[in-house]
Amino acid sequence: MAPPSRPVPNPRIVFTKRPGNGFPVVGEHISLDNTRSIDLERVLLNGGFLTKTLLLSPEPAMRERMRDPEIRSYTTTAIVGAPLVGFGLVVVLRSEKDGIKAGDHMFGMTPFEAYTLQPYIEGRVEYKESEWPAGTFDMDSLALQVVPDPQGAFPWSRYCSILGIPGLSAFAGFEAYANAQEGETIFVSSGASGVGSMVIQLAKMKGMKVIASAGTNKKVEHMKRLGADVAFNYNMSAVSDFLREHGPLDLFWDNVGGSTLEAAIEHLTVYGRIIMCGSASEYNIGLEDRHGIKNTSYIFKKRLTVQGFLIADHAAKMAPRFFSEVPALVAQGKLVSEEHLVHGIENGPAAFVDMLKGGRALGKPVIVVAEE
Amino acid sequence: MAPPSRPVPNPRIVFTKRPGNGFPVVGEHISLDNTRSIDLERVLLNGGFLTKTLLLSPEPAMRERMRDPEIRSYTTTAIVGAPLVGFGLVVVLRSEKDGIKAGDHMFGMTPFEAYTLQPYIEGRVEYKESEWPAGTFDMDSLALQVVPDPQGAFPWSRYCSILGIPGLSAFAGFEAYANAQEGETIFVSSGASGVGSMVIQLAKMKGMKVIASAGTNKKVEHMKRLGADVAFNYNMSAVSDFLREHGPLDLFWDNVGGSTLEAAIEHLTVYGRIIMCGSASEYNIGLEDRHGIKNTSYIFKKRLTVQGFLIADHAAKMAPRFFSEVPALVAQGKLVSEEHLVHGIENGPAAFVDMLKGGRALGKPVIVVAEE
Repeated sequence: MAPPSRPVPNPRIVFTKRPGNGFPVVGEHISLDNTRSIDLERVLLNGGFLTKTLLLSPEPAMRERMRDPEIRSYTTTAIVGAPLVGFGLVVVLRSEKDGIKAGDHMFGMTPFEAYTLQPYIEGRVEYKESEWPAGTFDMDSLALQVVPDPQGAFPWSRYCSILGIPGLSAFAGFEAYANAQEGETIFVSSGASGVGSMVIQLAKMKGMKVIASAGTNKKVEHMKRLGADVAFNYNMSAVSDFLREHGPLDLFWDNVGGSTLEAAIEHLTVYGRIIMCGSASEYNIGLEDRHGIKNTSYIFKKRLTVQGFLIADHAAKMAPRFFSEVPALVAQGKLVSEEHLVHGIENGPAAFVDMLKGGRALGKPVIVVAEE
Repeated sequence: MAPPSRPVPNPRIVFTKRPGNGFPVVGEHISLDNTRSIDLERVLLNGGFLTKTLLLSPEPAMRERMRDPEIRSYTTTAIVGAPLVGFGLVVVLRSEKDGIKAGDHMFGMTPFEAYTLQPYIEGRVEYKESEWPAGTFDMDSLALQVVPDPQGAFPWSRYCSILGIPGLSAFAGFEAYANAQEGETIFVSSGASGVGSMVIQLAKMKGMKVIASAGTNKKVEHMKRLGADVAFNYNMSAVSDFLREHGPLDLFWDNVGGSTLEAAIEHLTVYGRIIMCGSASEYNIGLEDRHGIKNTSYIFKKRLTVQGFLIADHAAKMAPRFFSEVPALVAQGKLVSEEHLVHGIENGPAAFVDMLKGGRALGKPVIVVAEE
């Protein structure tokens, strides 16, 4: 008879308090809970499967879920007291579920903890359509999917950046709304982000002139390596001045909002397009304190089209093409990606807040919870 | 031998000074010039034709043409010292031009004066494409066109409202971008204006619920007569409160911009649409003093589509259908229109400024220069 198995620690990142309008504070709004453990060999699977978390992907949509449930937005709200839930890469340790076996790698929504009994219960919102405004997206509906082993062609961390939601968002939004023409000029704000760095590369593939912005000189150099024709650090150059020199713009892919959006509206050409994918400058600022955009009359004077975009509406339709085309391009080095690996779940809360603040490190932040 | 003919007075409204950001002032920026006369029988036609002005249509695009030529926008700029040029209805007195004969009624761009040798020279911008930014519209390219005599089925003044540029703008923009569905809710700002009153009626024809706003109680009653399900005076009710009660909105037709646009963005439903046709609240206010819109992040959170629209891009394509369908509906009383007739060209400058200020009188302002 084998000796009884022993529980191992199961640290988790817990959502402890809604942060209101400001940045969440580690230890106050999101906290590490080191008190739990799990018996990996004996925990009851109940027809499900047990996963070990390898990588976690802090993303802006998680901040939006921390809002007061009274405020309507595009997602359900997170549950105080439960682990954060977001995208991650896991490996299956044990399974009672058909089609899923030990050793499978899976990507999708998962709690921010070391080990999870799947499908997860804690942190999941029991979504009832009638209880949420129309158009609310149930984030927890994004189940884990088995993903192929890249066999060393690229690191697993790509699944949290160019082969994850950031890459898919860029791919689907660009495909649906960019109407990109060779020789046109695009401006990509937050061009060193997961989404932005993919948009830069897609635009170059279409033969566009690419202008890109980010918040550090290192990111500026990175955007140029990705193919941006000109790039600038918005902490060093005024957005409007830079666009005046290098525009006008035919297309603006916006991840930032606020004063950046206002400057782009000023420098869009007639019949220009804006794809609004995010407004990172506003996620941690109350409505009253945001930058008011005063030049919206250009929208009719220049006959602009502004299209709001969320990947949730496009994922089901676009994912098959994305996963049939993009991993090969990544393996061949035709599409590149950079991740900023943060080792240890204990560093996850700080990595999340750093992501919201724009981050000084290069690359899409990825929390490495465990090596295989 | 007939006695020699005698010159008659030919009063005109002259653009005397650029008004900068504020409202133009009568006598300073636009002035009546009563010093001229014309010999109607003997003036040389030079292969052209002589017209008598019957009606003139003060419209917001004329204000935009008064800007500093350094400021780019969607039209060429007006010439200081020349008569104002805008839309009007004229009757031909004499003609040397094939296809145009005495007695013809014509509608189109014409100088704001009692009599004009056509094609007009004074006030016309000699448009060279290379000298203007891409997408600039040469207003003077809109030549006078012969229009049919309504034979008493409706007054000639309809050509300055529902059968003129306001009506055509509403018709073309609604056709191109509204994607109106029965049972949806539309909000029309400046719903008692020439454009707005047509949009209300087109929306009702599509089976939409219509919310409309204007600046006087009389206009509110008028909008209800046009078919608006609910209507409000924005000087009495906060836009946001009214929309909260009667929304959410599927579609917003905006003629006003600024804080009205911000309130509508707040109350649009997911996948809602905005057609931006104008921003009347901003035409006489400098950029710095405008209302800053702080809630643009709703554009991606609600996946809104915002479409800027100018009739200049659509007129050539849409006018044939418009003129084949709409006059009959007007004659049958299925589409109604109200004009505010201001008698006498000497009252034209004040009528123009009153139009810019929103006007307290009901109906599209029309200057009656002469009866036939």
